[in-house]
Amino acid sequence: MPQYTAPTADMQFVLHNVLKISESKTEGYSDLDSGFTGAVLEEAGKIASEVLSPLNVVGDTEGCVLENGVVRTPTGFDEAFKLMKEGGWTALDCDPEYGGQGMPYVLATAVGEMFSGANIAFNMYQGLTHGAYSAIHAHGTDEQKAKYLPKMVSCDWTGTMNLTEPHCGTDLGLMRTKAEPQDDGSFKITGQKIFISAGEHDLSDNIIHLVLAKIPGGPEGIKGVSLFIVPKFMVNDDGSLGDRNAVAVGKIEEKMGIHGNSTCVMNYDGATGYLLGTEHKGMRAMFTMMNEARIGVGLQGYAQAEVAYQNALIYAKDRLQGRAVTGTENPEGPADPLIVHPDIRRNLMDQKSFTEGARAFVMWGASMIDDHVRAGDELADDMVSLLTPVIKGFLTDKGFECAVAAQQVYGGHGYIEEWGMSQFARDARITQIYEGANGVQALDLVGRKLALNGGKAVMAFFEMIKSFCKEHGEAEGMADIIGPLKEASKDLQAAGMYFMQQGMKNPNNALSGSYDFMHMMGHVCLGLMWGRMAVAAKEALAAGEGDAEFYKAKLVTARFYAARHLPATKMHLARIESGADTVMGLEADHF
Amino acid sequence: MPQYTAPTADMQFVLHNVLKISESKTEGYSDLDSGFTGAVLEEAGKIASEVLSPLNVVGDTEGCVLENGVVRTPTGFDEAFKLMKEGGWTALDCDPEYGGQGMPYVLATAVGEMFSGANIAFNMYQGLTHGAYSAIHAHGTDEQKAKYLPKMVSCDWTGTMNLTEPHCGTDLGLMRTKAEPQDDGSFKITGQKIFISAGEHDLSDNIIHLVLAKIPGGPEGIKGVSLFIVPKFMVNDDGSLGDRNAVAVGKIEEKMGIHGNSTCVMNYDGATGYLLGTEHKGMRAMFTMMNEARIGVGLQGYAQAEVAYQNALIYAKDRLQGRAVTGTENPEGPADPLIVHPDIRRNLMDQKSFTEGARAFVMWGASMIDDHVRAGDELADDMVSLLTPVIKGFLTDKGFECAVAAQQVYGGHGYIEEWGMSQFARDARITQIYEGANGVQALDLVGRKLALNGGKAVMAFFEMIKSFCKEHGEAEGMADIIGPLKEASKDLQAAGMYFMQQGMKNPNNALSGSYDFMHMMGHVCLGLMWGRMAVAAKEALAAGEGDAEFYKAKLVTARFYAARHLPATKMHLARIESGADTVMGLEADHF
Repeated sequence: MPQYTAPTADMQFVLHNVLKISESKTEGYSDLDSGFTGAVLEEAGKIASEVLSPLNVVGDTEGCVLENGVVRTPTGFDEAFKLMKEGGWTALDCDPEYGGQGMPYVLATAVGEMFSGANIAFNMYQGLTHGAYSAIHAHGTDEQKAKYLPKMVSCDWTGTMNLTEPHCGTDLGLMRTKAEPQDDGSFKITGQKIFISAGEHDLSDNIIHLVLAKIPGGPEGIKGVSLFIVPKFMVNDDGSLGDRNAVAVGKIEEKMGIHGNSTCVMNYDGATGYLLGTEHKGMRAMFTMMNEARIGVGLQGYAQAEVAYQNALIYAKDRLQGRAVTGTENPEGPADPLIVHPDIRRNLMDQKSFTEGARAFVMWGASMIDDHVRAGDELADDMVSLLTPVIKGFLTDKGFECAVAAQQVYGGHGYIEEWGMSQFARDARITQIYEGANGVQALDLVGRKLALNGGKAVMAFFEMIKSFCKEHGEAEGMADIIGPLKEASKDLQAAGMYFMQQGMKNPNNALSGSYDFMHMMGHVCLGLMWGRMAVAAKEALAAGEGDAEFYKAKLVTARFYAARHLPATKMHLARIESGADTVMGLEADHF
Repeated sequence: MPQYTAPTADMQFVLHNVLKISESKTEGYSDLDSGFTGAVLEEAGKIASEVLSPLNVVGDTEGCVLENGVVRTPTGFDEAFKLMKEGGWTALDCDPEYGGQGMPYVLATAVGEMFSGANIAFNMYQGLTHGAYSAIHAHGTDEQKAKYLPKMVSCDWTGTMNLTEPHCGTDLGLMRTKAEPQDDGSFKITGQKIFISAGEHDLSDNIIHLVLAKIPGGPEGIKGVSLFIVPKFMVNDDGSLGDRNAVAVGKIEEKMGIHGNSTCVMNYDGATGYLLGTEHKGMRAMFTMMNEARIGVGLQGYAQAEVAYQNALIYAKDRLQGRAVTGTENPEGPADPLIVHPDIRRNLMDQKSFTEGARAFVMWGASMIDDHVRAGDELADDMVSLLTPVIKGFLTDKGFECAVAAQQVYGGHGYIEEWGMSQFARDARITQIYEGANGVQALDLVGRKLALNGGKAVMAFFEMIKSFCKEHGEAEGMADIIGPLKEASKDLQAAGMYFMQQGMKNPNNALSGSYDFMHMMGHVCLGLMWGRMAVAAKEALAAGEGDAEFYKAKLVTARFYAARHLPATKMHLARIESGADTVMGLEADHF
């Protein structure tokens, strides 16, 4: 049975030593002293380890069952969901006006990693509700907010996102779901939506569906898409529940993983819906949810890597197999533990250096969201926009890769379901696909985000790395970390330059390299995070505070990442600079 | 429902244009003219597409069921297995003395790719039998051969390999299964074996288990392991079946994939066994099976990539989503097909260039096995020994990666089981694990094979590449292919040099880079294969024979691989040259 241990010490290190959040001027951050965040993380960690983690295998094995239009979630989910609600965990960073606790996003992110790592399928019920909450909070009328938000903050009602239809996913302009205006100002929604996570289930009293649809006679394509609130049960003016709306689950999909979450086909048959935001501007409102969701998915990716790594590490220390080539290390036993073998160690370090780097990256991103939302920092907003596709695409690709690598440590035991390692890999796989497949993230990064505001964000990004390298490059013991970061950043800039020059001639020259660029940029971001963690570790060691071995391990891991992962940028640059000729060289018919 | 199309034209190209097999002096090759091999491949292809492929999803969905000690295989497997037997497909390259058809291994390999690509779980029943056949053929007494082989060639009886025990997989020296000598020369086998593929099922009249066990009082560890023949039903002197032997299936494992194959826990409770080969030399006999099995697993890896790629290609041409950035390509339709998008094209080319390169690599390896077995070519044997871990490790890692990439083309539809893409990824995953996890392959390559016979094979390998580059580097249109191959080969030599110099100081410096070395060498091998295929395509184009577009596509794909994949060697070299310091820098307790 796999285990989950909350990485509290590591999160505290990122919050306080690296991001130094309690020194920040951003509203609400001054409350986040180390004692407070430690207490919150400790409590969340207990729930993750003791409640959610044991239900992870249950969810995978039982899955969700559809019977007579009702979806039954796996044994124990209902009780655990009640516990999450009662503990206020669903309301952590929500607006106090609607019952939320108003905590900064950076802290909610740390908690989210724990819940997601312990049980991704379970945590999605709350995660999607949060996304729907954000869209209504940003775009709803006061009346809509008052009507829906308090119950969504408490998760008495959950939420969904309805975008995909059978014939269209990425290209939502092809959408066929119709929204016909009614005399009372409402709309009748008709159409089929697929892949709707948490579309129907037994965990909440009501489900608030956010549905994209087209108002007949509106603009063609994506410009004619509007967003609607479609409750499962109509909500009376006094807040009580009324009639069942004309929306029903058609079937539950059989999937590779996240079996504990119900992925539904939803049929809207003239269901009553209410416009959210402006007519035909549905995509804008949807993107409020999507950006948040994309960062959340990046987090899911490395959170699966983290839990998989934790279990691989336990197994590598426990399983006796072979002898160390440099001399027996466990003379009392019949063999040495797996962890003595260099290739196992290499594999574990790959995982460790990724997950710790990814955690710092996402929490840094979350802190910039706070800086924007709470302190109006526009550059922070641009920077988050730029980094969102990297967080989503790179962290989920590498997260899956790490979950697979962790499974590999178990040998044949990793392939059978009994040890739970297969589930981590199968569950992690979805993160590369949903909320915009990773190829779409790469396109967003290269096709839109690089040029955003005249390239302001990307220039600020390079400037930030340059000044970081300048500030710390000469410090003792930093050369092995800063040197490779500088090189990697230079490669990334060269790739950007190539896109500017050759992409002008033919956009395919840029787009053929978009995926490589996303990975390059991911490495540079993790390189920067390792640089910052190394600086923080050195400061802590110099101050003589805390557990010296913890900080020394950070320095070794930083050097490992720099030596073993940053060189990937050279390969990506070579691929990018080969342009579109070989990629687009074959006619489709000659494949 | 996924499809399988036999890549007959591509196999014919490798056999006749690249390997030019009918010009070879090796015994049996002169019969292999293009008409003959075409007819065999055509027939095998029909079975693969029409019989085995439709059963692939059935096998995944139904799995194998254990009831009252009997394992029921999925619906249709029994009938298909009969068809394979009746068509003589199980006997293709077996010894005619025992009912085989005596065809060269290179042709059997091509057929094996088809069967494995269409239905890996099904094909394992025959594949394991072939492995057991080979071990008995190589190490059995005349009596044993006469008794078991004819029925195994026909697959009336199937075979298994029994190595792993609950507490030991890679480190077989820890084995506990006992073989106690009896007065009649037989042994009583007692112990538990796990992960036994095809350990029990309803497809054959008898199952011949090959079991590793220790004879009490023998040498400690791996040197005291012997190999035994343990039939499920005892075989009387007249060939008829006698009593049930004391071996029974304990349970069937729940696995991530290959559900159509029964993976069994086998309990030996004083079962009667017969020594195969020499006492305490069981590992040597087992390796006869293992080397064959490892090449077979490499083949399985790219065969899954091939079928996944085929389906991704169909989907990419069919699914309409978005518009080409360089201008609408499907003006009549609501959107352009996915294949117009550069990142989708990049993904498809990654897959195409890998599977075609891998096919040439494995068939070249198979031809060298023929050169050794049929013509006594010792250098060919050394070369195959050197390349076996690369074939197994690199082709299965990349095969899985490609199956996952193919799944990605489908977006959300790739994650649900309905389209079959998840199965290809889940099935491919086992190939990285069984027959020696890929980390063990890397260890075998760097720790043993490089130094084999004083490094004769690896030196011959580099010499071969050098002379190939010299011969073809100046030819028109070859610079883009040979240039990167030369560079990659230089990187590989530099890595070998680093191992020699730094590995002497500390073996961990070599072993920390073993996995990267395996991948580097894989790239160099595929680069060489693409070089050879480019030369063959140019020859065919110059001769004006066949389909010119087919050969032109080979040249584009060769350039793609050279431009987009060979640069990976630089990254691997940088990782290798960073040595063991960061990999082994942390104490196990400080992880």
